[in-house]
Amino acid sequence: MFEKPIGMRDTLPPLYETKNQIRERIKGELKLWGYQSIETPTLEYYDTVGVASAILDPQLFKLLDQLGNTLVLRPDMTAPIARLAASSLKDVSFPLRLTYDANVFRAQHNEGGRPAEFEQLGIELIGDETSSADGEVIALMIAALKQAGLSHFKIAIGHVGYVNALLLDTVGNEQRADTLRRFLYEKNYVGYRQHVKSLSLSSIDKSRLLELLNLRGDFSKLEDAKKLLTNAEGNKALQDLEKLWDVLENYGITDFVKLDLNLIMHMSYYTGAVFEAYSDNLGTPIGSGGRYDELLKKFNRPAPATGFGIRLDLLVEALGNTAEKQTVTCIIHTNERRKDAIELAKEKRSEGIAVILQDLSGIKDVDQFSQNYDDIIYCIGKNGKGDI
Amino acid sequence: MFEKPIGMRDTLPPLYETKNQIRERIKGELKLWGYQSIETPTLEYYDTVGVASAILDPQLFKLLDQLGNTLVLRPDMTAPIARLAASSLKDVSFPLRLTYDANVFRAQHNEGGRPAEFEQLGIELIGDETSSADGEVIALMIAALKQAGLSHFKIAIGHVGYVNALLLDTVGNEQRADTLRRFLYEKNYVGYRQHVKSLSLSSIDKSRLLELLNLRGDFSKLEDAKKLLTNAEGNKALQDLEKLWDVLENYGITDFVKLDLNLIMHMSYYTGAVFEAYSDNLGTPIGSGGRYDELLKKFNRPAPATGFGIRLDLLVEALGNTAEKQTVTCIIHTNERRKDAIELAKEKRSEGIAVILQDLSGIKDVDQFSQNYDDIIYCIGKNGKGDI
Repeated sequence: MFEKPIGMRDTLPPLYETKNQIRERIKGELKLWGYQSIETPTLEYYDTVGVASAILDPQLFKLLDQLGNTLVLRPDMTAPIARLAASSLKDVSFPLRLTYDANVFRAQHNEGGRPAEFEQLGIELIGDETSSADGEVIALMIAALKQAGLSHFKIAIGHVGYVNALLLDTVGNEQRADTLRRFLYEKNYVGYRQHVKSLSLSSIDKSRLLELLNLRGDFSKLEDAKKLLTNAEGNKALQDLEKLWDVLENYGITDFVKLDLNLIMHMSYYTGAVFEAYSDNLGTPIGSGGRYDELLKKFNRPAPATGFGIRLDLLVEALGNTAEKQTVTCIIHTNERRKDAIELAKEKRSEGIAVILQDLSGIKDVDQFSQNYDDIIYCIGKNGKGDI
Repeated sequence: MFEKPIGMRDTLPPLYETKNQIRERIKGELKLWGYQSIETPTLEYYDTVGVASAILDPQLFKLLDQLGNTLVLRPDMTAPIARLAASSLKDVSFPLRLTYDANVFRAQHNEGGRPAEFEQLGIELIGDETSSADGEVIALMIAALKQAGLSHFKIAIGHVGYVNALLLDTVGNEQRADTLRRFLYEKNYVGYRQHVKSLSLSSIDKSRLLELLNLRGDFSKLEDAKKLLTNAEGNKALQDLEKLWDVLENYGITDFVKLDLNLIMHMSYYTGAVFEAYSDNLGTPIGSGGRYDELLKKFNRPAPATGFGIRLDLLVEALGNTAEKQTVTCIIHTNERRKDAIELAKEKRSEGIAVILQDLSGIKDVDQFSQNYDDIIYCIGKNGKGDI
């Protein structure tokens, strides 16, 4: 009866402290790279931001406002920031570098599964089509994860232009390509192989589709990718990735990246290089991002853009609950000694020590209560303070 | 078309920085007083937390989950924390000191009015019925506001027990008392006077109701209040306030407080001493709180409790947009000089300087773009870096 809605969670003090420490470290790094913080509302119109978000309807929390408009709890931050760039910030010249720290919402169908609300820290770099921008976003994600304390992780880099072109070139229509994309999105490679074998295609085309699965590893695989697809879209995508590689080399971060041309993203607005961050000890990506050059057009301010989002909950899971327990001093006092206790608390707080001031008559079970504190001072009776 | 839902707002970078600085100062103070941070979900069940919140239905954002349960966007944090204290924290002994920093939601009917989503920073002190607890909460609110930089403000202190008892004692039933309460809640004292005059009451009772309006000022007014109401509820309320006064004297903060026995709160769950914080330059209270000894019972863990919430948006309004503009260095580079630019940015960032790295070919209008930065370094051409 007093439970929370499906997928909703409370954060208790120890986890809160860990989250907060990691959050602040990441925000500090994003700020050092010149990204400016913004906030957008939790509720947005369904018809604009909701639709642009590319999250499917069953995962949206929807409600009606008093005028009958459908509202959504924002399912991501990229679409709201696109709205912002095209409205409140429409007079600010590109490139725009924005950062956010916000909860996003995805309705869940059963408990014990994914969270229906989770905190995302991210950036958007809007109005810059260069590979330098793509590289900056990846370099910043790596810097932020390192700053957060993560050491064993990799960024898998793909390109939606390449995989889409290869699938369409081989199977001939978007519907059939979609079926294959779904297998790749779910990383169900067994299902993908079986499905490819069941298709009525030439053995050459079947082997090309299967060969796609091998386009993962180091960037030398780009050579194999070139052989597999020779049309204009494919070439453009591979050139993008080659240029991106040069930028990543300039940053000296190629050890952190690998190629994954199978990569299919949750959000459909991506148009170019995309990436996911994996910690060695976690199966789910703790962050992802990529280029989305068509989204801003939907808000009447066409512009190329790229960005990333980090899932704070998953990053905390990868790092472990590491926050040190905060030391709190507890001063227990009687009515008569309250003033002394207040003075003492004031003194200690001015030294940066966290102090709880507790009236003895407000405690039911002193023995039990006092177990919560390492440092207890009693201001009781006529004597001075009694340290125990 | 690309607007935000009614009452929803974006926060742009300069305001974000101001909010963040004020937020961090307050959170620092709350932590020094030993309050532990928690988070609860944005969505709660209507039947439990929604109803307990005491916000009227037209102000609630409601939606249905997939099982047909009604959910609400939390309209306050006191009810969710009561749920938390009675569930996830049910084994932690009282008194509990918790703090939160959360957005709460109140549906608005027209634009240009109040925000439909606003950030509240607050505390709850649960399981302590002493006047020391009431005093601590007021003292902490004062300390937090001072820490935030506010100097000219006052805390108006009332008692719902007193005003309810006086109204009921005079007008005889709750319905008639409610009408008078509404005038007081709206601070419509003209309307209150007119309504009192129109009632069919003895002239003695009418003058008692009018006399209530005079029970504002310094705490010596408690003597007048005693004469006006002599029943048990009235006595209990005035004793509470006298004990509270002693605590405030112990804290040395009586200069910041005044008595207001007309005070009627928005939330109906209050049972004892209540208070509102007023900045000299703002008509709306920037924070409020009080004792609510019956709310926890609704979640099956009966306990006395008190707490406060500060409206960050209003506090920022009272303080003014004070954040200093952050200095950002911008390094503009060509493809060939990207590596040099990256090295330079890395060096500066390691010194704590915020640096934007910008590929020249990513800028449409260099003159316009460069206006955004005080410090621009060009890594262009064969020469070394060019400071301009």
